[in-house]
Amino acid sequence: MVHGQRSDYMDFAIGIDIGGTNLKVGIVDCQGNVVARLSQPVGGDKSSEGVVGQIAALVEGLRQKSPGPVLAIGCGVPGIVNFERGIVYNSPNFPLWREEPIVEMIRQRIALPLTLDNDANMHAIGEACFGAGKDHCNMVLLTLGSGIGGGLILDGKVFHGDRGFAGEVGHIVVEPGGVPCGCGGRGCLEQYAASHGFGTFLGRMSDNERKAFLKDARVPLDGITPEVVARLADGGNKVAIRLWEEFGGYLGIGIATLINVLGVETFVIGGGITKSWNRFIDAARRTALSHTYSYHADHLIIERGMLGNDAGIVGAGTHALRCAAGGLKLSKEHSP
Amino acid sequence: MVHGQRSDYMDFAIGIDIGGTNLKVGIVDCQGNVVARLSQPVGGDKSSEGVVGQIAALVEGLRQKSPGPVLAIGCGVPGIVNFERGIVYNSPNFPLWREEPIVEMIRQRIALPLTLDNDANMHAIGEACFGAGKDHCNMVLLTLGSGIGGGLILDGKVFHGDRGFAGEVGHIVVEPGGVPCGCGGRGCLEQYAASHGFGTFLGRMSDNERKAFLKDARVPLDGITPEVVARLADGGNKVAIRLWEEFGGYLGIGIATLINVLGVETFVIGGGITKSWNRFIDAARRTALSHTYSYHADHLIIERGMLGNDAGIVGAGTHALRCAAGGLKLSKEHSP
Repeated sequence: MVHGQRSDYMDFAIGIDIGGTNLKVGIVDCQGNVVARLSQPVGGDKSSEGVVGQIAALVEGLRQKSPGPVLAIGCGVPGIVNFERGIVYNSPNFPLWREEPIVEMIRQRIALPLTLDNDANMHAIGEACFGAGKDHCNMVLLTLGSGIGGGLILDGKVFHGDRGFAGEVGHIVVEPGGVPCGCGGRGCLEQYAASHGFGTFLGRMSDNERKAFLKDARVPLDGITPEVVARLADGGNKVAIRLWEEFGGYLGIGIATLINVLGVETFVIGGGITKSWNRFIDAARRTALSHTYSYHADHLIIERGMLGNDAGIVGAGTHALRCAAGGLKLSKEHSP
Repeated sequence: MVHGQRSDYMDFAIGIDIGGTNLKVGIVDCQGNVVARLSQPVGGDKSSEGVVGQIAALVEGLRQKSPGPVLAIGCGVPGIVNFERGIVYNSPNFPLWREEPIVEMIRQRIALPLTLDNDANMHAIGEACFGAGKDHCNMVLLTLGSGIGGGLILDGKVFHGDRGFAGEVGHIVVEPGGVPCGCGGRGCLEQYAASHGFGTFLGRMSDNERKAFLKDARVPLDGITPEVVARLADGGNKVAIRLWEEFGGYLGIGIATLINVLGVETFVIGGGITKSWNRFIDAARRTALSHTYSYHADHLIIERGMLGNDAGIVGAGTHALRCAAGGLKLSKEHSP
């Protein structure tokens, strides 16, 4: 009711979700609804100039569709972001990016207040405000994909750490001396509890077991994806079922470490791999609880994200709106 | 100069540091100085009633020595503390304690505002305000002893998590399926980078290597302490030197996970084992940096605590003073 009464002076923001394959923009209202959206594949020019040019054109097209004034823009970017300086240090999806002044570049094209943050932080804001993390002032978001993204909501705000590096939960070390990781380390969580994990597990099998599995899968080793393992598990393949449990076990180890470090008991899991939720979540929960104090057993919440593909734009738009309203200062706002 | 001028209207608090073997109380001024102190071994009655009775008598004796009005009391307790409810769930040092209402029990004896927190959190406040963590708004304190305590200072405040469980950094899982831990899990950091670690490492040696080492050490296996290994290392024993590096390596793995999760770049290490600082710190730093993004290399600070045995009372007293002043609300204050 109240919502309806207030709709005539509702404010809107544009949420931008820069992904490695798709660029998405949406108009978000103050209740987290996406009232209009546009998206397109990332073009051939993956330089920051190229991507920002594409984004600017999408935003220009989207503004025409807004049912009310657009107050601000929020932009989520994959990679290491200095949200205060408005800079993206690097991005796994855009290997050429090096300390790109994304805020400055967007501001030259669009005259609206702009907030920038890591895509997982934006995703976390979306789930914390309108999704599976609602009503929890502490929450950790993990996105499971080719890697693992993370966003920490602590005491109701995104926690950034000293220079924006907080939430790199994919690099929790779960196996000292284990599988080498792109970060330069070894044994990082994302080598086990993300897409790569299945390759890791297959690498440890005996030759015969691996050969038999690949024969059932009817793909070569580098064709093993979560989808392939899910298809086999659906067909009753015992090894595939075990691999998903192994995957869940590592996820649970990561969650246990987060519980023990942060004392946070609400976890929201997003990303494409959650399509196989039932295959891994019991093992994850069981392992998390077996590596933490028993006091957590009645309080631990591990939920699947509710906002799906919209999480990034909902979070970015909400972030921008809240910063513009001067309320929850989730991050720094860069004026136009 | 300013300090001297203001001393005539300086405020004081009493800091209490409850340890497994000693009870310490001190009068702390607003610059973190301990102006008077008393301590005694924990008596035979280790029930919460017995310990609180001892504490009350110590505090009564100490108040006579105060150069000015005592505004408040801060109390640090080893174990899992619910600082809001004023309850100690359990304590590794006092195995009989179960959800002890410590705040209520002290209040019945001493009519002063009281704040309660985990001992490591109090220690962290001391180092953050007046020690090695000064001028850093994000800091993680680790205390290395028979276990590993931890305190998180995030955005200038102690972070407690959902119910006071934050900072259990000794239970970062560094080896899935590894050494069983008192928390019910396996492979926890404190089974490797605390006193227990040396037993863990000896357990992995070949029988011959272990026998030779114990012969050099001239103690049985259960007599292997950090002091013994330090003495051997000082004498040039190569295995002992390697054990300290192994210890440092595990500490570095734990620090790497904390950097990756929290994005915090300032670590303060306290506890008795820091007497052997130079034996393990290089390995810890090297391992931490090899498991984190290169961006951290120029920013990572790992410092030895500066407050030594006083850290607990300085932190508890400072905590109480700041809560009483209504300034930094580091925790909840319980009125008398």
